[in-house]
Amino acid sequence: MVERRKPIKVNEAIERLMVYSVKGNQEMIPIEQSYGRFLGEELIADHDVPLFDRSPYDGFAIRSRDSKNASRETPINLEVIGEIGAGSVFEEPIGEMQAVRIMTGAQMPEDCDAVVMLELAKEFEEDEKSYFQLKRSFHSGDNVSFKGEDTREGTVLAKKGTYINPGVVALLATFGYKHVPVTKKPTIGIIATGSELLQIDEPLQPGKIRNSNAYMTQAQIERAGGQAIYYGQFSDQFSVCFEQVKNALEKVDFLITTGGVSVGDYDYLPEIYEALGAKILFNKVGMRPGSVTTIAEINGKLLFGLSGNPSACYVGLELFVRPIIRTFLHSSQPFVKKEVAVLGGDFPKPNPFDRFVRADLTYQDGKLIATPSGLDKSNVVSSLASANVLILLPGGTRGYQKGSEVKVLLIEDQMGTTYENFNRK
Amino acid sequence: MVERRKPIKVNEAIERLMVYSVKGNQEMIPIEQSYGRFLGEELIADHDVPLFDRSPYDGFAIRSRDSKNASRETPINLEVIGEIGAGSVFEEPIGEMQAVRIMTGAQMPEDCDAVVMLELAKEFEEDEKSYFQLKRSFHSGDNVSFKGEDTREGTVLAKKGTYINPGVVALLATFGYKHVPVTKKPTIGIIATGSELLQIDEPLQPGKIRNSNAYMTQAQIERAGGQAIYYGQFSDQFSVCFEQVKNALEKVDFLITTGGVSVGDYDYLPEIYEALGAKILFNKVGMRPGSVTTIAEINGKLLFGLSGNPSACYVGLELFVRPIIRTFLHSSQPFVKKEVAVLGGDFPKPNPFDRFVRADLTYQDGKLIATPSGLDKSNVVSSLASANVLILLPGGTRGYQKGSEVKVLLIEDQMGTTYENFNRK
Repeated sequence: MVERRKPIKVNEAIERLMVYSVKGNQEMIPIEQSYGRFLGEELIADHDVPLFDRSPYDGFAIRSRDSKNASRETPINLEVIGEIGAGSVFEEPIGEMQAVRIMTGAQMPEDCDAVVMLELAKEFEEDEKSYFQLKRSFHSGDNVSFKGEDTREGTVLAKKGTYINPGVVALLATFGYKHVPVTKKPTIGIIATGSELLQIDEPLQPGKIRNSNAYMTQAQIERAGGQAIYYGQFSDQFSVCFEQVKNALEKVDFLITTGGVSVGDYDYLPEIYEALGAKILFNKVGMRPGSVTTIAEINGKLLFGLSGNPSACYVGLELFVRPIIRTFLHSSQPFVKKEVAVLGGDFPKPNPFDRFVRADLTYQDGKLIATPSGLDKSNVVSSLASANVLILLPGGTRGYQKGSEVKVLLIEDQMGTTYENFNRK
Repeated sequence: MVERRKPIKVNEAIERLMVYSVKGNQEMIPIEQSYGRFLGEELIADHDVPLFDRSPYDGFAIRSRDSKNASRETPINLEVIGEIGAGSVFEEPIGEMQAVRIMTGAQMPEDCDAVVMLELAKEFEEDEKSYFQLKRSFHSGDNVSFKGEDTREGTVLAKKGTYINPGVVALLATFGYKHVPVTKKPTIGIIATGSELLQIDEPLQPGKIRNSNAYMTQAQIERAGGQAIYYGQFSDQFSVCFEQVKNALEKVDFLITTGGVSVGDYDYLPEIYEALGAKILFNKVGMRPGSVTTIAEINGKLLFGLSGNPSACYVGLELFVRPIIRTFLHSSQPFVKKEVAVLGGDFPKPNPFDRFVRADLTYQDGKLIATPSGLDKSNVVSSLASANVLILLPGGTRGYQKGSEVKVLLIEDQMGTTYENFNRK
């Protein structure tokens, strides 16, 4: 007897799920390991930038009032009484008609208020003293970068939950974060089920296929910012499977199972959820692939029952697991970025349900083009390698023509988006 | 006296540099660690996909000839003599007017040549035997996925040098790669120079700034696919600096120095190159920032002398170091992807040289929009955190208006592009 399940919409599934999202705790890690992690607290400027008035050029620091009468017709000569390398401070007084050679980035001497660029100064020596000739006047502040003009001490430079890219690393270093507060990665257990699955290193056998979902989901979890823990694959016996799920659940923040969520005779997951006393949030979603995606909750901990079909498993992870991982990491934009693209090939299949199609993203004259992978069936496997977007084709249509405008999910993007933007039609 | 240097164009600099690119060797790593690495050899299908004729649906495997006369008016009854779960093989003979229940993905029995979907079969029991009624005929091959129809054994599924994303991981698992051949990461030494630099955990001092380049470049190298080795920062003494460069050079595939390449009195790098006997490929590039970028070669090993200015250092790494790293990894698309975008804000500065401007990439109605970071100067520091493209503004212009079409380098993209595309105007 086939169990009847009532499909719900993708957005309703997400809303039911997000009720159980949780946020992770902080840990401190060395800055050298921070790339690709997520900030565990606000990044705050601990000092003004620049920290002091400084010269943005190689040149001469002067007192601008000395240059008041300088012109092409009436050049003036200023005496060079010293030099300031980057990192040095010049503490001697600078008198009338005196100047100091200054390097890019060096701190302005207290008595000076303008910088003459090197190319405007004609240097010469006289009586064993150094001078330069100047043919124009300068105002106070000319060519000076002022303390705090880039950023003020106390400014929030990046929010908690920000993805740490190389630019963020530069800021962390600038503001002295030798150790960086990041959110601990959520641990996500993976259990593969399916009597057709071979271990990756087993010889091929009639009727069987190798388990690819376990490895694919590990990579997807890593991309999303989580820590995958693989518990192995289980097939035949309900009791073994049940024990594995129960044990794994105690050790992880979230648990993913692949396979076993259909209504076939070998699909144990519904039984396991029942035996665990888990509350099923939904067990059918009006989408393809992945309609049998089942998500349950027990004591506030989420169990993701992803389909055993690799495409469905892939889509289910990006739609349902990724926002839970990113919310754990305190991101305010935990959803996959959703944008508009031009369809790069016909998609003639009628579409009663929302469909997510793996596709290649390219660009043409500044526009996004998304071309479904594997339109040519002989190429369906290899095209998965380059797929970097999911095209979302809403249900209730009779297919799409090349050139149509479609929505795409940018699965390689790390910035993400809010639920509001994700859910926008 | 200011040394005269002759600037060369960015593309000429790249061409001089790429002459010394080298390719790395292979290593085997567990598939669980392969995400984000680069394939060290072609990924080849070691078997047909599907491996056997299989059912794409839950249903009944039949001999199509038995259904020849079935219609709404003359339904037929087929006897169900067994079932085939995914992963099982049904080896008994199937006689006239007999069928077998078959699960999604299961291997077709030898005697059958079509699959009836579950919803078209009206099941019933009679005399303790199972039957279903069928009201239409099927052709041989209906609803069967044939051996090899997705991909043929021996097909190249991904080229050497491909970035391993989760889709590639799925393919590797499908084809039994428990260990994955990847190219060893190139090791890239980093030495920071500059008498103005404080260690990251030193208290602030007048005239000094914290060393951010060392950490930023480590993150950029990691993003590009290399392995950074930080040798520390050196400032005051030529001899110390020289020894450090010399020692580091022996241990790494490439060496980056930050700072010390200007013509200032404290810029030792030109002297160090000379003392090493290194050949300078160029020491001035017609670009901003980063005009003092200097690249040298000794015994075929590249020394990247990046500017000490953080923006210039960042740009120099993406333009010059990244393609060397990606070529080492056997990528056929080692350059940063270059595309067209709409300028999201005015850039009023006249532009005698090619200028690379860090910017935020957004999307609007399927178009790329690039908005320069830090147009508002008070925001210049924090905007670095979100910058994910470099806008390329060609030299010889008087500024750009919002809405202009510009070229952008997609620094977060992992696919890359060829030199031919990178160099296209």
